[in-house]
Amino acid sequence: MTEPLAVPSSLPQCKADFPIFTHHPELVFLDSAASAQKPQQVISAIANFYAQDYANIHRGAYRLSSRATDLFESVREKAAQFFGAPAEGIVFTRNATEAVNLVAYAWGLRHLSAGDVVLVGEMEHHANLVPWHLVAGLRGARVEAVRMTPDGQLDLEDYAHKLATLPVKLVALQHVSNALGTVHPARELVEQAHGRGVPILLDGAQAAPHLPLDLAALGADFYVLSSHKMLGPTGVGCLIARPEVLRDLPPFNGGGDMIREVYPDHSTYADPPSRFEAGTPAIAEVIGFGAALDYLKALGMDQVHAHEQMLLHYALEQLGGIAGLTLYGPDPAQAQRSGVVSFNVLGAHAHDVAGFLDEAGICVRAGHHCAQPLMRALDVASTARASFYVYNTPADVDRLAAELREIVQFFGET
Amino acid sequence: MTEPLAVPSSLPQCKADFPIFTHHPELVFLDSAASAQKPQQVISAIANFYAQDYANIHRGAYRLSSRATDLFESVREKAAQFFGAPAEGIVFTRNATEAVNLVAYAWGLRHLSAGDVVLVGEMEHHANLVPWHLVAGLRGARVEAVRMTPDGQLDLEDYAHKLATLPVKLVALQHVSNALGTVHPARELVEQAHGRGVPILLDGAQAAPHLPLDLAALGADFYVLSSHKMLGPTGVGCLIARPEVLRDLPPFNGGGDMIREVYPDHSTYADPPSRFEAGTPAIAEVIGFGAALDYLKALGMDQVHAHEQMLLHYALEQLGGIAGLTLYGPDPAQAQRSGVVSFNVLGAHAHDVAGFLDEAGICVRAGHHCAQPLMRALDVASTARASFYVYNTPADVDRLAAELREIVQFFGET
Repeated sequence: MTEPLAVPSSLPQCKADFPIFTHHPELVFLDSAASAQKPQQVISAIANFYAQDYANIHRGAYRLSSRATDLFESVREKAAQFFGAPAEGIVFTRNATEAVNLVAYAWGLRHLSAGDVVLVGEMEHHANLVPWHLVAGLRGARVEAVRMTPDGQLDLEDYAHKLATLPVKLVALQHVSNALGTVHPARELVEQAHGRGVPILLDGAQAAPHLPLDLAALGADFYVLSSHKMLGPTGVGCLIARPEVLRDLPPFNGGGDMIREVYPDHSTYADPPSRFEAGTPAIAEVIGFGAALDYLKALGMDQVHAHEQMLLHYALEQLGGIAGLTLYGPDPAQAQRSGVVSFNVLGAHAHDVAGFLDEAGICVRAGHHCAQPLMRALDVASTARASFYVYNTPADVDRLAAELREIVQFFGET
Repeated sequence: MTEPLAVPSSLPQCKADFPIFTHHPELVFLDSAASAQKPQQVISAIANFYAQDYANIHRGAYRLSSRATDLFESVREKAAQFFGAPAEGIVFTRNATEAVNLVAYAWGLRHLSAGDVVLVGEMEHHANLVPWHLVAGLRGARVEAVRMTPDGQLDLEDYAHKLATLPVKLVALQHVSNALGTVHPARELVEQAHGRGVPILLDGAQAAPHLPLDLAALGADFYVLSSHKMLGPTGVGCLIARPEVLRDLPPFNGGGDMIREVYPDHSTYADPPSRFEAGTPAIAEVIGFGAALDYLKALGMDQVHAHEQMLLHYALEQLGGIAGLTLYGPDPAQAQRSGVVSFNVLGAHAHDVAGFLDEAGICVRAGHHCAQPLMRALDVASTARASFYVYNTPADVDRLAAELREIVQFFGET
């Protein structure tokens, strides 16, 4: 067996911060692209907030509420620094999915008309397809998809062609593929869209946890992400939009906290970002998300990325040598890849492979990864997928590779 | 000073379960109508889930995920039993506000047309007004409000009259007033709407935490509530709908987990309730909500209600005797009231009153309580509001009354 590669020094120790591995010492968790485990720092931030500081926010008639409001709003500032975007452009949502829906409804119902095209990608997660189907359907617009190349990249020629020839009103593309790990050339995608005067949304659910981001420099009009994939709690995500775009947007959800004046038959609305945060928000979740950002910042996103690249290359090397295993996604020499390896075992269903791995304490996902069009393009029903994060180690890859060798042999014999 | 009334034996001890009162021993928390404090049982359920059992759900390729799915879905069953409604009619949302928006968009965009009327109440929380303004605006429909009586009840004659004479397509009314505590005759409201063939949504945000509910018997088409007001975490609420109504409803948010099949240009959708839960849900929050329901069930909702009634009557007796204090809301002899007392001090702004109370460690809310139309009907800019829950005691009322006597005297002299 190949010797594990050296691990960046700041990272391997961090696994001890994640209590799930204390409770399940043998666990090899390789499903972080679905959702990441949580460090004690995040869990304690939530528990301590409830135990010591809890109150509803934005209703500062007493100090407990003012303090909770400050804790909540400080996370907006924290996120602004972390992602390189102005705080007034950060809207807290339930998750990346809801952030796409917010744009689809608020922007789409106003700006889409019959015949207009929303340009998505063939590789999109359903979160960046279905909202456009729903809203395009309401407006008589249609959704068209940029093709992917056989090796799992966005076909940039097809992108330029469709931008030039279709009545595209909005581009909505993923930044990183959840199923294949492809990191798309985001800056180029934005420049091409803007070159045609078309606004662009980037789905950063699989990018924000893994790449250092500078969203102001990237220049996308809308960027969406989820806390739970980046060590934070469930129940919270972000829409990060250019403030001038947000100011022109009508509300999505209506309710308390997003209004200026309400009469029985009509209302006027607050400025962004409040305009888009109706009702009591996910207060404790936002505060937990802040703790996750602190944690990632302390690790350093450059180090996080380097650690995952190390694991990715080690995994491709280990799994690439197993006959009977098909790996999907681009060659990292040809395209940037994040820490995701999708694969199938010859003669075996992905769910059975995942089941065997689970027996050995190894968690991978199996299925269409909420990307049915991509699966059709690959001409497979499903894949198994291993995905890496800060708490993974080369030893995890070794255990995956060792089990897969046995599984391949088992299915080769049956 | 009047002697405190006897307290139902099962409840006063429960205050010890709420760590906020250990950290702030002098705290008199009288703002539970804004959001309730959390018992250790709820905090631990969330922390333990993250520390021991966390994984994304509905993707059961491994046991950790299957177990998390079971924990999550068991809360749907728990909620079904708690609220007396079929599990397949329970949709998890961010909060009551989002649940109203779900109905406004999914039902309203399909069923409202130009000239149609959504009938709300003058006393509604903004959460049950603004979504209707938004969606009625998109469809050319309009929103009309049932008047309230001078003492803060829904004017039932006006309700019957408007139902009979306006082209009402949907009724959307609160079950309990957040600002005045009025408990409206829900069964009668439903029967009258259904008698006209009109579906009805009830906003139960202020009812579900305080009243025993049997939603199947109540028969409302849509019922909404928030976890955070009933001892549970932020970031989760419910739409509880009649399953046959839900089956006819198109999706609201699109994304993963709510689809059957997705193509680049169109999608087909899963059955309810999945159809309405796009993307990774608030998993830990739902599990925490389950712990809150367990906790309330152990106390017994009849006991919770009796405890609050005791506190309400004691507070009305204590505060009613203070000259210079105006109390709002119906006489409990005339109408059911929940544990909410809205008041103003002659010559003082409600915010100043709340500030003085805060100095004494007493948290009340001051403002329009997200009910601006109600404030206009009362002809006040704002009120201060004390609201009670399971951890409050007659001693809390004593402290409020004592402080208010001093505040009234202070403003009387200035």
